[in-house]
Amino acid sequence: MKIAVLGMGTVGSGVVNVLNTNKNKIESLLGEEVTVTHVLAKNIDKARDIDLSGIQLTDKVEDIYEADIDAVIEVMGGIDNTYEIILQFLKNRIHVVTANKDLLAERIDDLVAVANENEVHLNYEASVAGGVPIIKTIENSLNANQISEVMGILNGTTNYILTKMTVDGWTYDDALEDAKAKGYAEADPTNDVEGIDALRKIVLLSRLSFNKKVDIKDVPSIGITKVESEDIQIAKNLGYVMKLVGIGKYSDSLSASVEPIFFKADHQLASVNYEKNAVYVIGNAVGETMYYGPGAGSLETASAVVSDLIDVLTTPVKGNFAPSEKAVIQNEEVEYQYYLRFNNDESAVKSALNDAGIGHELNNENDNVVAITEKVNKNQLDEALVGLETAARYPVIGDE
Amino acid sequence: MKIAVLGMGTVGSGVVNVLNTNKNKIESLLGEEVTVTHVLAKNIDKARDIDLSGIQLTDKVEDIYEADIDAVIEVMGGIDNTYEIILQFLKNRIHVVTANKDLLAERIDDLVAVANENEVHLNYEASVAGGVPIIKTIENSLNANQISEVMGILNGTTNYILTKMTVDGWTYDDALEDAKAKGYAEADPTNDVEGIDALRKIVLLSRLSFNKKVDIKDVPSIGITKVESEDIQIAKNLGYVMKLVGIGKYSDSLSASVEPIFFKADHQLASVNYEKNAVYVIGNAVGETMYYGPGAGSLETASAVVSDLIDVLTTPVKGNFAPSEKAVIQNEEVEYQYYLRFNNDESAVKSALNDAGIGHELNNENDNVVAITEKVNKNQLDEALVGLETAARYPVIGDE
Repeated sequence: MKIAVLGMGTVGSGVVNVLNTNKNKIESLLGEEVTVTHVLAKNIDKARDIDLSGIQLTDKVEDIYEADIDAVIEVMGGIDNTYEIILQFLKNRIHVVTANKDLLAERIDDLVAVANENEVHLNYEASVAGGVPIIKTIENSLNANQISEVMGILNGTTNYILTKMTVDGWTYDDALEDAKAKGYAEADPTNDVEGIDALRKIVLLSRLSFNKKVDIKDVPSIGITKVESEDIQIAKNLGYVMKLVGIGKYSDSLSASVEPIFFKADHQLASVNYEKNAVYVIGNAVGETMYYGPGAGSLETASAVVSDLIDVLTTPVKGNFAPSEKAVIQNEEVEYQYYLRFNNDESAVKSALNDAGIGHELNNENDNVVAITEKVNKNQLDEALVGLETAARYPVIGDE
Repeated sequence: MKIAVLGMGTVGSGVVNVLNTNKNKIESLLGEEVTVTHVLAKNIDKARDIDLSGIQLTDKVEDIYEADIDAVIEVMGGIDNTYEIILQFLKNRIHVVTANKDLLAERIDDLVAVANENEVHLNYEASVAGGVPIIKTIENSLNANQISEVMGILNGTTNYILTKMTVDGWTYDDALEDAKAKGYAEADPTNDVEGIDALRKIVLLSRLSFNKKVDIKDVPSIGITKVESEDIQIAKNLGYVMKLVGIGKYSDSLSASVEPIFFKADHQLASVNYEKNAVYVIGNAVGETMYYGPGAGSLETASAVVSDLIDVLTTPVKGNFAPSEKAVIQNEEVEYQYYLRFNNDESAVKSALNDAGIGHELNNENDNVVAITEKVNKNQLDEALVGLETAARYPVIGDE
């Protein structure tokens, strides 16, 4: 079997590495040899750590379109141009494995339609939570369930920053600098810290879990740039841990968002720390389950890519998962407990919440008035807070 | 499509429940209707909560052997008799889904050989960690990896007991009584508390992870009946949490066991509490991953059974996983840190461990001398402890 790899960055070289290191096992599963015959790279003259001898290295994808290959692995990133490239391979009836969440979050339904027309696989396990097997798990192992909720720590950079702020009491700025130094954050960390990366992943997870097309523009995203260490430390004393989570819920309607949420310390997601990822899935038969592991990394991500490769090369095409209806996202009715910190005195807070009929516990922490409310929806809360000066406001997931 | 369900206890009724409740989703995946046409039950006259109208209920399996069915679900339990029954269905070229760890841990290789001869599926997701999808995950999602270690909290009863002893400071006896009262422990809890149930599951996981036939008689099992709350509390103060784990490791040789182990509190398995299960898998590409959820329960286990059912009814038979070589289990060379509590004074302990060249930290906790050692193998430790009175000894999994 012959394959092409598009992109020879961190993940692309990891794929070649895994195919070499675990050659015997992989070939015993495939029943025959698998060879990378073509590699697309931006700079074909660049010195690389990895041995690409015998492989046709090109910077022109046109050299690969008509090649005699069984599958293509797309790990080059990019959206519009890469869309056209993947489309061409699908039309040529070549299976595609991709790790490209940026592209998929925008156009997965279009690509799947073409893949299904041409009866080829389009697999994307590595695009959500890196090495953690969550796409196949939802699709093939939780398929006896109706899923009511999927939520996850889907971005390692922000989880690293929040963990440093929680465990070590660091400020956001110091934790971000450290994440950059350790290679977890890019020079321009916008996509991570504004929650855009997590947003793309929760779009893909919600689509799969709830069988709806999800328009990324319908899903709000709040990042962590405005999170203050003060709130993290106050909440820690109260027994809560902040995580940036992508969350999708479905009952009568679908809600979806990315936002910082305080979890009770004994929630399974609360102990997922540093750069690790985890996805929590609730089904109507299985109940609560969680999947934990590395959200990024060369070999880690390649683990998912090569697993997809084995799948597309050995599994008959049954048609890729394709929801027919578009989701209507409604976040107004979702009820959460809330963590609220006020620049008001205790009596003002108490009477405002009491007047609105919102049960709550008040705490005085470091001269701050902090309330943990019962479950309310956003509109109720907005109304109750008119006239108060709210310094911080986060949903809380506690004892359900 | 027509199926038979053998056994109408907790899991069997859960299966019928899930097939009814999630009928639309399951049938859209199957592409056609699925009907339970036959049920085998011990007592066919028993009043049941579940509606079995239209289903042929029998206490004679012979009535089902020649029935026109596509798959059989075995959730009746038992070993020798059930082996013969499953064998007959496989020979009749009927796919089998089973949750029967007791049987599989003894005879899975024999059953798989017959299934492969007859080109039918033998699926067993529910037999390990209940609703947690771990069999398919190792087989289909971590398949690009060579797995070096698989370990798990595989028994909810003992995890509940140890959690009560850790969190609430209860004695073993009190925690066991509570587990019985809550329905987590059976009247005769031997299989759980002696680690036999976990043993069966680690045999299945090791076989799958390391591609070896594993003879259950080669794997030692230590339960929790001799665990004292004193050690749990002392270790808790030192930052460790006890879990009963099945563990298999493979490097040059294979080691496997079931035993109580102290985990550093920030290890992901340390926060898996009460009746929950979790499996930790380390692969050479993906690194460390964990899978968490319910290890038992009617609908929870049925989630895995019905997922297997969908799989056997929709996936072409490629041959069930069948290792060819028998594992040689060697536990002597495995190195762990150890928790040791002594009925000796500090100086005797210190000089014995120093003489043996075993690095350690000594602690005096509640008038006990407790050592946490560096990593040593069992023989080294046995030798070092000659002449000392060791009151407790447990492996420790800490910062690796």
